[in-house]
Amino acid sequence: MKKRPFGYEIRLRDNTIPEFDRRIERRLSALRGQYLDEAAFAQAVLNGDPLVYEVYEIHRPQKEGELLSGLSVVHPGLVGEEFYMTKGHYHEISDTAEVYYCLKGHGLLLMENEQGDTTAEEFRPGRVVYVVPGYAHRSVNLSLEEDLVTFFVYPGNAGHAYGAIEAAGFQKLVVRRNGTYELIQNRAWARKAPGIG
Amino acid sequence: MKKRPFGYEIRLRDNTIPEFDRRIERRLSALRGQYLDEAAFAQAVLNGDPLVYEVYEIHRPQKEGELLSGLSVVHPGLVGEEFYMTKGHYHEISDTAEVYYCLKGHGLLLMENEQGDTTAEEFRPGRVVYVVPGYAHRSVNLSLEEDLVTFFVYPGNAGHAYGAIEAAGFQKLVVRRNGTYELIQNRAWARKAPGIG
Repeated sequence: MKKRPFGYEIRLRDNTIPEFDRRIERRLSALRGQYLDEAAFAQAVLNGDPLVYEVYEIHRPQKEGELLSGLSVVHPGLVGEEFYMTKGHYHEISDTAEVYYCLKGHGLLLMENEQGDTTAEEFRPGRVVYVVPGYAHRSVNLSLEEDLVTFFVYPGNAGHAYGAIEAAGFQKLVVRRNGTYELIQNRAWARKAPGIG
Repeated sequence: MKKRPFGYEIRLRDNTIPEFDRRIERRLSALRGQYLDEAAFAQAVLNGDPLVYEVYEIHRPQKEGELLSGLSVVHPGLVGEEFYMTKGHYHEISDTAEVYYCLKGHGLLLMENEQGDTTAEEFRPGRVVYVVPGYAHRSVNLSLEEDLVTFFVYPGNAGHAYGAIEAAGFQKLVVRRNGTYELIQNRAWARKAPGIG
């Protein structure tokens, strides 16, 4: 871990951080239970389990005052009528924010909190999305051709909590309809989280 | 202050955040005492006190867990043989970091800490600079034609402390020599901060 200030490059030619500390690859099988169309999901996992997204991280001490930053790359694709997306998570320390800056592509940041509020903000190059503390967040690639590439920054002590989303998904699903996208209610979410829905 | 997640645009056509909460304009006179060539400084202030840089801020509660973000635009220019630059500052809560992402231009982030360590990282489009906790930082535009445009993110509780830099400047000055730049020792700094130099 560097003690002195440093720089790193986000290389948009191939959507990487060449000097990353950690690269996470998520294949479709990591999103089990998140897609409505279970048959399409199972078939796609059988047919090679495609790479859905990658994250390049720069490590810092995981403590207050430090910042964690890196690059998120969501590839284009559909599972049934739903777009490729990240697993999504809350922060372990829930009153911590996150900032995304969209570098390339077209997408959505889908967000919801534990009080049942749900919202989404569009990603277009040049747009920043601010995730206020307490909101789970998931990136969705709305393009079928281009990667969705975002730069993210969040507090060093935030941590990631995947459990709630793995168990119940997000309230909203993002589906392709008439050449554009629509947010529809996730019936599985209401079923699995009856106390909130 | 928004309670729900939100987005905003960084408009690179004119280097602004149209939906800013606060816009700061710094004219040259705000940098009194920071330039070596006092005669050139005084003359430029008399000749219209040029706009040196602008900052567009998005407000959030100034507390831990929140993030402050915005845009810094340093215009091109020289005072004597020194480039246009920001005032520079420490954070009030000194063990807080900052992240810069360079959107346009060519520059330097000049940094130093209270133990006397001094360093600089280059800004080029696509480069991130990580200011580890405890380092004062100043942006310097190395171009004589283009704005230096950077997106910044820092912890909500960090605060800004300008006093030390206003009193003693940075250890290093960034000067134009032979069509490029050089870092030279700031003799005024040694004089004003004898305990550290």
